[in-house]
Amino acid sequence: MSHNTFGHLFRVTTWGESHGPAIGCVVDGCPPGIRFTRAEIQAELDRRRPGQSRFVTQRREPDEVKILSGVMEEGDGLVTTGTPVSMMIENVDQRSKDYGDIAERYRPGHADYTYEMKYGLRDYRGGGRSSARETAMRVAAGALARKVLPDVVIRGALVAMGEKRIDRANWDWDFVKDPENPFFTPDPASVPVFAEYLDGIRKAGSSVGAVIEVVAEGVPAGLGAPIYGKLDQDICAYLMSINAVKGVEVGNGFEAARIRGEENADEMRAGNDGRPRFLSNNAGGILGGISTGQPIVARFAVKPTSSILTPRRSVDRGGAEVDVVTKGRHDPCVGIRAVPIGEAMVACAIADHYLRHRGQTGRG
Amino acid sequence: MSHNTFGHLFRVTTWGESHGPAIGCVVDGCPPGIRFTRAEIQAELDRRRPGQSRFVTQRREPDEVKILSGVMEEGDGLVTTGTPVSMMIENVDQRSKDYGDIAERYRPGHADYTYEMKYGLRDYRGGGRSSARETAMRVAAGALARKVLPDVVIRGALVAMGEKRIDRANWDWDFVKDPENPFFTPDPASVPVFAEYLDGIRKAGSSVGAVIEVVAEGVPAGLGAPIYGKLDQDICAYLMSINAVKGVEVGNGFEAARIRGEENADEMRAGNDGRPRFLSNNAGGILGGISTGQPIVARFAVKPTSSILTPRRSVDRGGAEVDVVTKGRHDPCVGIRAVPIGEAMVACAIADHYLRHRGQTGRG
Amino acid sequence: MSHNTFGHLFRVTTWGESHGPAIGCVVDGCPPGIRFTRAEIQAELDRRRPGQSRFVTQRREPDEVKILSGVMEEGDGLVTTGTPVSMMIENVDQRSKDYGDIAERYRPGHADYTYEMKYGLRDYRGGGRSSARETAMRVAAGALARKVLPDVVIRGALVAMGEKRIDRANWDWDFVKDPENPFFTPDPASVPVFAEYLDGIRKAGSSVGAVIEVVAEGVPAGLGAPIYGKLDQDICAYLMSINAVKGVEVGNGFEAARIRGEENADEMRAGNDGRPRFLSNNAGGILGGISTGQPIVARFAVKPTSSILTPRRSVDRGGAEVDVVTKGRHDPCVGIRAVPIGEAMVACAIADHYLRHRGQTGRG
Amino acid sequence: MSHNTFGHLFRVTTWGESHGPAIGCVVDGCPPGIRFTRAEIQAELDRRRPGQSRFVTQRREPDEVKILSGVMEEGDGLVTTGTPVSMMIENVDQRSKDYGDIAERYRPGHADYTYEMKYGLRDYRGGGRSSARETAMRVAAGALARKVLPDVVIRGALVAMGEKRIDRANWDWDFVKDPENPFFTPDPASVPVFAEYLDGIRKAGSSVGAVIEVVAEGVPAGLGAPIYGKLDQDICAYLMSINAVKGVEVGNGFEAARIRGEENADEMRAGNDGRPRFLSNNAGGILGGISTGQPIVARFAVKPTSSILTPRRSVDRGGAEVDVVTKGRHDPCVGIRAVPIGEAMVACAIADHYLRHRGQTGRG
Repeated sequence: MSHNTFGHLFRVTTWGESHGPAIGCVVDGCPPGIRFTRAEIQAELDRRRPGQSRFVTQRREPDEVKILSGVMEEGDGLVTTGTPVSMMIENVDQRSKDYGDIAERYRPGHADYTYEMKYGLRDYRGGGRSSARETAMRVAAGALARKVLPDVVIRGALVAMGEKRIDRANWDWDFVKDPENPFFTPDPASVPVFAEYLDGIRKAGSSVGAVIEVVAEGVPAGLGAPIYGKLDQDICAYLMSINAVKGVEVGNGFEAARIRGEENADEMRAGNDGRPRFLSNNAGGILGGISTGQPIVARFAVKPTSSILTPRRSVDRGGAEVDVVTKGRHDPCVGIRAVPIGEAMVACAIADHYLRHRGQTGRG
Repeated sequence: MSHNTFGHLFRVTTWGESHGPAIGCVVDGCPPGIRFTRAEIQAELDRRRPGQSRFVTQRREPDEVKILSGVMEEGDGLVTTGTPVSMMIENVDQRSKDYGDIAERYRPGHADYTYEMKYGLRDYRGGGRSSARETAMRVAAGALARKVLPDVVIRGALVAMGEKRIDRANWDWDFVKDPENPFFTPDPASVPVFAEYLDGIRKAGSSVGAVIEVVAEGVPAGLGAPIYGKLDQDICAYLMSINAVKGVEVGNGFEAARIRGEENADEMRAGNDGRPRFLSNNAGGILGGISTGQPIVARFAVKPTSSILTPRRSVDRGGAEVDVVTKGRHDPCVGIRAVPIGEAMVACAIADHYLRHRGQTGRG
Repeated sequence: MSHNTFGHLFRVTTWGESHGPAIGCVVDGCPPGIRFTRAEIQAELDRRRPGQSRFVTQRREPDEVKILSGVMEEGDGLVTTGTPVSMMIENVDQRSKDYGDIAERYRPGHADYTYEMKYGLRDYRGGGRSSARETAMRVAAGALARKVLPDVVIRGALVAMGEKRIDRANWDWDFVKDPENPFFTPDPASVPVFAEYLDGIRKAGSSVGAVIEVVAEGVPAGLGAPIYGKLDQDICAYLMSINAVKGVEVGNGFEAARIRGEENADEMRAGNDGRPRFLSNNAGGILGGISTGQPIVARFAVKPTSSILTPRRSVDRGGAEVDVVTKGRHDPCVGIRAVPIGEAMVACAIADHYLRHRGQTGRG
Repeated sequence: MSHNTFGHLFRVTTWGESHGPAIGCVVDGCPPGIRFTRAEIQAELDRRRPGQSRFVTQRREPDEVKILSGVMEEGDGLVTTGTPVSMMIENVDQRSKDYGDIAERYRPGHADYTYEMKYGLRDYRGGGRSSARETAMRVAAGALARKVLPDVVIRGALVAMGEKRIDRANWDWDFVKDPENPFFTPDPASVPVFAEYLDGIRKAGSSVGAVIEVVAEGVPAGLGAPIYGKLDQDICAYLMSINAVKGVEVGNGFEAARIRGEENADEMRAGNDGRPRFLSNNAGGILGGISTGQPIVARFAVKPTSSILTPRRSVDRGGAEVDVVTKGRHDPCVGIRAVPIGEAMVACAIADHYLRHRGQTGRG
């Protein structure tokens, strides 16, 4: 990854700010002959769209994706031609806004100060590239990545919100996509708990973080590389590239550091298909940087948004000490919407490794 | 990162296996005019060398580094010319060994099975590229990266070993490098605790993981980029690329997901130097992917080695069920030696971003 | 360069086909604080626009560029923020067209057959990515690259068209931009010659190639790298990436192979500014891959378009032998419009090396 | 290409200077399971070795290649494991030398001045990275690339030397490798002409350039990409990266700019294998950046070496005007030895595209 591009063979470049006329991405290196519909891309985008419950920002963004290149029409759908697929979403909710106050103050926990240190100027109009809006294009690219991996199922779920966490014994993937589930939680019993907790956070003008787990099933064994191109490393880098993510782990992650070697190593028995059958999955489906064929499991931690009503101490560009309060709409838990984003990034990482593996070895 | 190269302007390529004649690296893009001595590189290498206490493998590797290109002699030392710096360590402890048994069995927790799935063949002679030996070249490259960043101090410490962790109140950087400290722990009180614990692990033929913390002080504000080139993302990817690492985090990491926005956002007051003074460092020195000028703090989790004496269930290449025991020398806690490796990777990541920042903005 | 991206720090990704809704590019890594106006970009685009004389295709493309990201308004103009600059041109002249005939036939000299061999499908609607239209985005990116290099003047000229060539003794850069000069030729005396020649070619339904020379003045000494990052190599690769280019050379180019060492090596005398003054410029401003400070001179050969009225023998997708005639509008000499494209590519190559040099060495 | 690495999936990094202890390369991304012998690599290296006739420098370099990683022994040979293949040649002919004079003077036509402008220091000991010696590692990497492409035959020949050129009617590939042929010329009749001509050049203390043609037969149709990853563009970039190369062309190259569209476009008829049969090969086996299945033909121009006995005017580092004469051994025509180097670079370019094509499309 460098600048605003990620991937080696399945390469995604995103561009755009929430306050500009549009945001977009270019997916370069997508295999030719991939069949999909605009509606399939749109459906993924709709999953991360704000304004779907009282727990996420009411900012209305229809997020209607346009596909500008790299495809031909075929029947009712589209087929990739092998050339760059450009996708774009126009920003329709660009209210003219008085940024005057924010333009001169460094909001604590935001990138205001660091942007200015980096670029020598201040683009005060929204979060710049760190805006949550940018993540829409990751989801669009991820929707295409899924099509490159037809036999792989990639699903995410929220497993912790602030001080509350799910009971993994209740895990139900179907419930994650239940329209009555505003949290992408896999544990039905957690919904009232999270709802009450988050209502409290919201009323207090506060915010809270979350932990998201993404699971990829059906990934063939052999993807990845031993060290600098480890599949887990790339998955973690892709997840860390999401705004507000502070930690990532694969398999049992940090827990691995606590337990013993004989507990941690996944034992094997003969499988019915002539391949080893693993008796556990502490490794999260990856050993030595290479997929084992077991489900790939990754988790990432999203920090609480710093856009809160509680006044926080800061300084302004002139060096004067000020208090900062973030007014206006915001999400009390931005981590909720991170679920489809995490899925998309995992899909892109695996798609890239799938093509790289095929290139180097001729298999896959 | 791709294949065996990492970095964009400060680019490191490593090669070699523990069972071959040598291992090495090429550092390409190193600025010209960097002054250093071979002894300085060697000193870093000696820090990760096995055989220094009863807690690490007694395998003797003098690890004498040769510098083959990219430098001129100047006075008593060397100066980089701007061309690729090639470094190499010859493998002297290549005992002829009977791998027959291991060659046919998949060791649980090792990459034996996945290597074969990836490459279609089995290089059974040691851990291939996943060998701990490979990390020597990261340390050599990191020693050079430190020279590119003369005002940055990068130090690591072991903060947890299996079920035991340090008391952060006792943190003493000087103690980390005390020759009487076999653990790179910053807490003197932890030494007897870790020693007794690890003796028990070793006697049981078991192994245990560790958590390492790396802190970089003196990093100027402005390094990094908002999203796909986030400094924290690259630091995490560099750390995840180390063999046996299962999780990474920056600043308060996973803890950020648990606390509230007003607790998490680091407040600012006017500093004496005209710059903001942060009142806390939950962000770990990075906001919006860009350094704030505060210390950069990253942690990574190392799993317990799967080379243990306890028999584990597995299968062989023919599909038959077998028990596997790893004989011979091994480290009960490979995480100890990961401390200088983690420092080296953080140094390389920051050096690369330093050059990239200077390239894009002309500052730095 | 890979796929549809070129450059390391000044990175350009282009997308789009002439028959789709739009074409565009993303310029990533552009330094922040670069001031320019939309009109300046547009002016460059207008130079390559078809429909300006009887010698170029009458296809009307207003080519109105939109700037979608990476800039802030400042006064009457724009300033780059350091984030990706996305530019787009909508395709307005998309006549609904019957491609039936072409869809099944491989046009000689076109990429019809090779596209199908590569992608396994046929995108018959225009030239795909090889369309001349794609080059508009190179020109837009190049206009921005020029702004990164304020003291560098990059100009191109047509020096040969088919069997006719200019008299270099008449070289007049001002004449190249004379509105009465439809050929970008620097030799006023060549205009009637080229005009008569090209009228004959056009009337015969034929086509002819051209040689373009690009000169960059004011490039500081020190850009480039000895071998794999040679400035001349990258300039040549950038020029070769233009559709229909079959050869490239720097300085005296192929002529260097004909003359002797003492004729070829540019001698030096002491300059007034303390720097060497070169007595000739056979090297084309580059020695050992690194700029000397002299003008950089590159030339490239554009083949005649294969879209001609003369029937040519070919086969169709079913393997049957057919004759192919290209009807409709076309340029008798596509090389004319290649002049601003060549300038743009040289500008992008030098801008990238300028940033890379600054990154590695801290100078520039 | 950047810095000292080239290729995307078949990636080669070279390092080393002629005056250091060794030179080497790392081939990363080589497919696993490639069988070869050290002798096969050595045989390619021996073809470019100096000291084989009176027409090339008498510098003795045994150029014995060591293979340090990425292979396993299998039978009498080696097999790649998929990990980086590191190869090294020790420099044995490092005479202690008085560089005093050269150290302070800028040799005309050499990179002395530009190196100093780039790096801010002067590595006077030989040509630095621009040394012809570096090319040995390209040949070693190319030998491996050939093994990745078992059905492709890549051969080069010298087609012009200074003012003399071959008669293409006499072309005989077998003669190129005749031990009695000191010039890699394909035209037996040219040998006495070149010999007499070059003797005169040598006696005059002068030098002369050459044009080399490389032909790759058996390349499947479909390799490459339409524009920024054109196969011809990458071949040209790889050839331009060779020291002293000033121009490159594919197919009829610059000649294409001179002829008409109906002459230039290669017509097709039905082939016996169901594929089109091309009636000519002006395109040099590449249309729209993608291979047609015809032989790929590229040419490059090598300038005469500037190491000549004739005094040339220059300046020294202090700005004083001086005369420079290059004493000692040198090649009167360095282009001769460029033949195996050109072949190697074309092999590497095609191998990389072969793997990239397989990655994106699953074919090949």
